[in-house]
Amino acid sequence: MKKIGVVLSGCGVYDGSEIHEAVCVLLAIDRAGCEAVCMAPAVELTVIDHLTSLETGEKRNVLVEAARIARGSIRNIAEVTASDLDAVILPGGFGAAKNLCNFAVKGAAASVNAEVTRLVREMATAGKPIGAVCIAPVVLAAVMGREYSPVVTIGTDAGTAAEIEKTGAHHQICPVTDFVIDEKNKLVTSPAYMLATRISEVADGIDKCVKEVIKLI
Amino acid sequence: MKKIGVVLSGCGVYDGSEIHEAVCVLLAIDRAGCEAVCMAPAVELTVIDHLTSLETGEKRNVLVEAARIARGSIRNIAEVTASDLDAVILPGGFGAAKNLCNFAVKGAAASVNAEVTRLVREMATAGKPIGAVCIAPVVLAAVMGREYSPVVTIGTDAGTAAEIEKTGAHHQICPVTDFVIDEKNKLVTSPAYMLATRISEVADGIDKCVKEVIKLI
Repeated sequence: MKKIGVVLSGCGVYDGSEIHEAVCVLLAIDRAGCEAVCMAPAVELTVIDHLTSLETGEKRNVLVEAARIARGSIRNIAEVTASDLDAVILPGGFGAAKNLCNFAVKGAAASVNAEVTRLVREMATAGKPIGAVCIAPVVLAAVMGREYSPVVTIGTDAGTAAEIEKTGAHHQICPVTDFVIDEKNKLVTSPAYMLATRISEVADGIDKCVKEVIKLI
Repeated sequence: MKKIGVVLSGCGVYDGSEIHEAVCVLLAIDRAGCEAVCMAPAVELTVIDHLTSLETGEKRNVLVEAARIARGSIRNIAEVTASDLDAVILPGGFGAAKNLCNFAVKGAAASVNAEVTRLVREMATAGKPIGAVCIAPVVLAAVMGREYSPVVTIGTDAGTAAEIEKTGAHHQICPVTDFVIDEKNKLVTSPAYMLATRISEVADGIDKCVKEVIKLI
């Protein structure tokens, strides 16, 4: 059974992984007959109250909170290597841009978590496919931009697209339930909640994205 | 557009709503062309670390945590009445048996949150359908058992089924991707993670359950 890594960044759109996206990724992987290998970095996140959208002043651990989405079946990304996986997928949510890297604050000058950087580089070197949805393609741009000139989408947002281009990556506009494929680098990206206004749009785009990633294995 | 209430109990299987189930309910509602109205009680929950399954000693607010699943679009259940809804669905997770009621500790002698009790009674009185998955049917048994003799399933667990029977409700064994329908009381229940070993089983059972609830409107 093919093993697909799922890199989570917490649990909740404003300070972690977007929950609908993460669940739709897990569902698409299972329906494709593959095994999801959930993982996250054991770093701190700054809690946002999802009722008010305000910071609470509290800190939580990304790995511990991501374990909620994974029902406890999750590994510290520091213990996962590309040899454990056939592909890897990064769901979105602000956690991808705040906890996996600091793109939300630094844009193209973002630094990426060391273990996330290592795993993405290992996958690229091994020629194994990588999927990313919503804002998570910025992680691929920040890690791979200069060296691989990857082609990705985050939908249509011009400001984010401009920052992506500054990394050396290329941005392509993409409709909500579609995906962009970079055949050379084996990358598949889809806008999800960067554009979606309904969960069914998210599910449809992610389903196509995950299937395409699996085809590239 | 038909409005389907979704009663959440936190965010995470061990101390709140089971996330996969809640998301599958929201997806099924959207795919059926209906609008989900998320709600939760503003009560405290006892936090379980989902990595270790142990209590952390921390408290969080059920409504605030459930807002993570609802992307902030959620109401305090105290402000929702049956007249706002065409149907209501309760996803599972330990939160249903610990935060919406105390069935996890008290079994058939459980008391149910006053606002949850009120809304379930209002729906029953109005003849509006109610769905519940996983362990959440115990809430219906605890509220409706003596008066309505509801027929529900939580899958196959004999101990839980026996407690359900003690409330005056009737338990029917049910396979993981199927559902039990109580036509008289307009109740539809499905086992989800009480039996499921894969997220695709959860999605299939919930999809059927939600469709059946909508048919009963």
